Amino acid sequence: MDILVKGATIVTQNAKRETLKGDIFVSKGRIAKIGKNLKEKAEERIDASGKLVFPGFVNTHTHIAMTLFRGYGEGMMLQDWLTKKIWPAEAKLKPDDVYWGTMLGVAEMVRSGTTSFNEMYISGLEKIAQATEKGGIRASISLGMLDKVPGHDTSGEIGKTRHLIPKLKTRSGRVGAAVACHAPYTCSGELITKSKELARKEKLQFHIHASETRKEVFDILKETGKRPIEYLDSLGVLDQRTVLAHAVYVTKREIALAGKAKTSVSHNPVSNMKLAGGGVCPITEFAAAGANATLGTDGAASNNSLNMIETMKTASILQKNHYWDPLSLSAQLALDYATINGARALGIDAGSIEEGKLADLVFADLKAPNMAPAHDYVANIVYAMNPSNITDVMVDGKFVMRKGKITAFDEEKVVDKASAAAGALVGA
Amino acid sequence: MDILVKGATIVTQNAKRETLKGDIFVSKGRIAKIGKNLKEKAEERIDASGKLVFPGFVNTHTHIAMTLFRGYGEGMMLQDWLTKKIWPAEAKLKPDDVYWGTMLGVAEMVRSGTTSFNEMYISGLEKIAQATEKGGIRASISLGMLDKVPGHDTSGEIGKTRHLIPKLKTRSGRVGAAVACHAPYTCSGELITKSKELARKEKLQFHIHASETRKEVFDILKETGKRPIEYLDSLGVLDQRTVLAHAVYVTKREIALAGKAKTSVSHNPVSNMKLAGGGVCPITEFAAAGANATLGTDGAASNNSLNMIETMKTASILQKNHYWDPLSLSAQLALDYATINGARALGIDAGSIEEGKLADLVFADLKAPNMAPAHDYVANIVYAMNPSNITDVMVDGKFVMRKGKITAFDEEKVVDKASAAAGALVGA
Repeated sequence: MDILVKGATIVTQNAKRETLKGDIFVSKGRIAKIGKNLKEKAEERIDASGKLVFPGFVNTHTHIAMTLFRGYGEGMMLQDWLTKKIWPAEAKLKPDDVYWGTMLGVAEMVRSGTTSFNEMYISGLEKIAQATEKGGIRASISLGMLDKVPGHDTSGEIGKTRHLIPKLKTRSGRVGAAVACHAPYTCSGELITKSKELARKEKLQFHIHASETRKEVFDILKETGKRPIEYLDSLGVLDQRTVLAHAVYVTKREIALAGKAKTSVSHNPVSNMKLAGGGVCPITEFAAAGANATLGTDGAASNNSLNMIETMKTASILQKNHYWDPLSLSAQLALDYATINGARALGIDAGSIEEGKLADLVFADLKAPNMAPAHDYVANIVYAMNPSNITDVMVDGKFVMRKGKITAFDEEKVVDKASAAAGALVGA
Repeated sequence: MDILVKGATIVTQNAKRETLKGDIFVSKGRIAKIGKNLKEKAEERIDASGKLVFPGFVNTHTHIAMTLFRGYGEGMMLQDWLTKKIWPAEAKLKPDDVYWGTMLGVAEMVRSGTTSFNEMYISGLEKIAQATEKGGIRASISLGMLDKVPGHDTSGEIGKTRHLIPKLKTRSGRVGAAVACHAPYTCSGELITKSKELARKEKLQFHIHASETRKEVFDILKETGKRPIEYLDSLGVLDQRTVLAHAVYVTKREIALAGKAKTSVSHNPVSNMKLAGGGVCPITEFAAAGANATLGTDGAASNNSLNMIETMKTASILQKNHYWDPLSLSAQLALDYATINGARALGIDAGSIEEGKLADLVFADLKAPNMAPAHDYVANIVYAMNPSNITDVMVDGKFVMRKGKITAFDEEKVVDKASAAAGALVGA
């Protein structure tokens, strides 16, 4: 279906980072034309006067089914929380639970302007793919492989991922597989090397947690003589199709290695701060070194939201405070991280509003009090906007939300089903 | 008018911090009764099944008319921003601009669940009072006096405040005056002492910025031989009716002084981080020492929002990260800071849902995807909620927002008028 969006204020994220007033013609899922007074014929014509239109956010690190555990086991130390709360509940997860947990997360993402996510999880991967397909957005989905724990071995893990790859690709093309190793401390060097080989062969992204905590740095240094990102570099896995999640405790040398390889780094400030690992991911230093800086929420069990607007603002003010520099991580850079850089990390031809790009668009109400005055549209998106301002979301040229109502699925049913599943999992 | 709220899930913030399912009978602006199956006669009966009801937030540090400067002069160093952007624009402020800027801020506050604010500003104070009265919420409003700059002197400043006190008190009783000194570095000891004397005599709150930056600490130490809060203590202004805003760079001794005096501290994490002062206000240490810990947004020129939900979450995760302790500043404590403690700081008989308290209530949609599942209502309010979930806001027993629509004033007109005023002020 062709759609003509009329009279919008468009934060394009094009090479010049222009904000334009005009029309967008969407055809066959792509942005076919941008300009003034477009007259193209379209099945649907949208009056977007009074709307700010910008590219959908790309969340580069999630565990979406864990939305079922939002707020479960608050106020505990990490190890207790995992062993007494999260792992026992996860052990009971059935594929249907994963489905409804994912749908719940997708609903939250749509309402906060996210159109793509980079998922790593341990079970029910096919259900995550099905739910995302139904939900109308994009995802790169991977099994978080690990072989340093009982019941898992290297070839078995690789076999599982190999088996999943074709099954995670959906009909629409919006959803597909990536290859993931959980982390250097849970995966052997052999598993990491073989996983990256598989990813290269299949032309897929590679996703791994790295340097999230001080303990991990200590353990990997003791075991390998190298710090986590040095170690990953020595295994040959740093390149433009790798996403390193967290990267909090890193040296200048590791930053340089990631930068030289143009690896993507997913900074997850809200989860990092809430889990109280201490320290701050030097994401602006990664970017300066040449890495592809992106943002993620992590799972709602540790965040406790999947709101990329909040993540942009938190990332920006955290860098400023950390470096004592109000010019650090500007609103424009935070928006870049959350849009074009995120799309690059996932290998999606989106992230900016330019002719030829996939039509993943978010519409926000310029007339909301918290979006006025309009001195600076980009600053308003990053520092002032919240999900109440988002009225319409388009992915692949189709609306998944229109005038504040999710059209891609029955949202009320999703909340009910997910709530019931969550209650049963924790024995409520 | 009497209102009966039926079937709510009530986060009471009572002494036991109970969450109850039941009804609330509101009469003559107060919470008259809470219980199951209340049968009281009421002019209005509200079905609140599927709603979470909690006390309205109290924002203990704002400059609300500066909402006109949201996003104005981003990406500049503080001193340039003030001297080249904010001060020249403020010099042009007319009373009507202050009125519309305040209305804009009130609209944003209502939509994010704030029902009271503690305001300090430099001009147009009567307009702030009028706009807040019209807006339907509560405020404690003060002129930020200063006498260390040309054109201002001690007795003139005191005279201005004395003159304003009766004028800031509105008919409804929701709006009234406080006494404020801008900061130790802009006010003489004489002005600070006399201001506090005036506040004591008039039984009003006293509001002052303190220890926001390292430079201030250095300057006050050089000038007085004391650090800012030690200095304020030596002037005799620390007591239960004083609100210290910021208090970022403080010693253990200063924390103990504020704690002993049971002074209120307004922690403004978002503004502090965005302005990149560095450091972190040790708000949990103030609370442990006996101070009344509260939260503020500061003005939208530096925040850039007036969203207390965001402030609760940012405060909580910032303390956790700073102390490397996931148990620091729990969701429950963050909610306490933003409700009962805030009300105590401002001397308002609200902040909890208990019989006899003022009826300042916020209603949020429990069926929104980001509010599910309901493992922990308080964690969901602090860590997961956003303004899109807030449907109804009641202040003084009257609805200012119903079913997502502001009923107290014409919101569209406010956005238009404030946007026009803002544009003219910056020469757009």
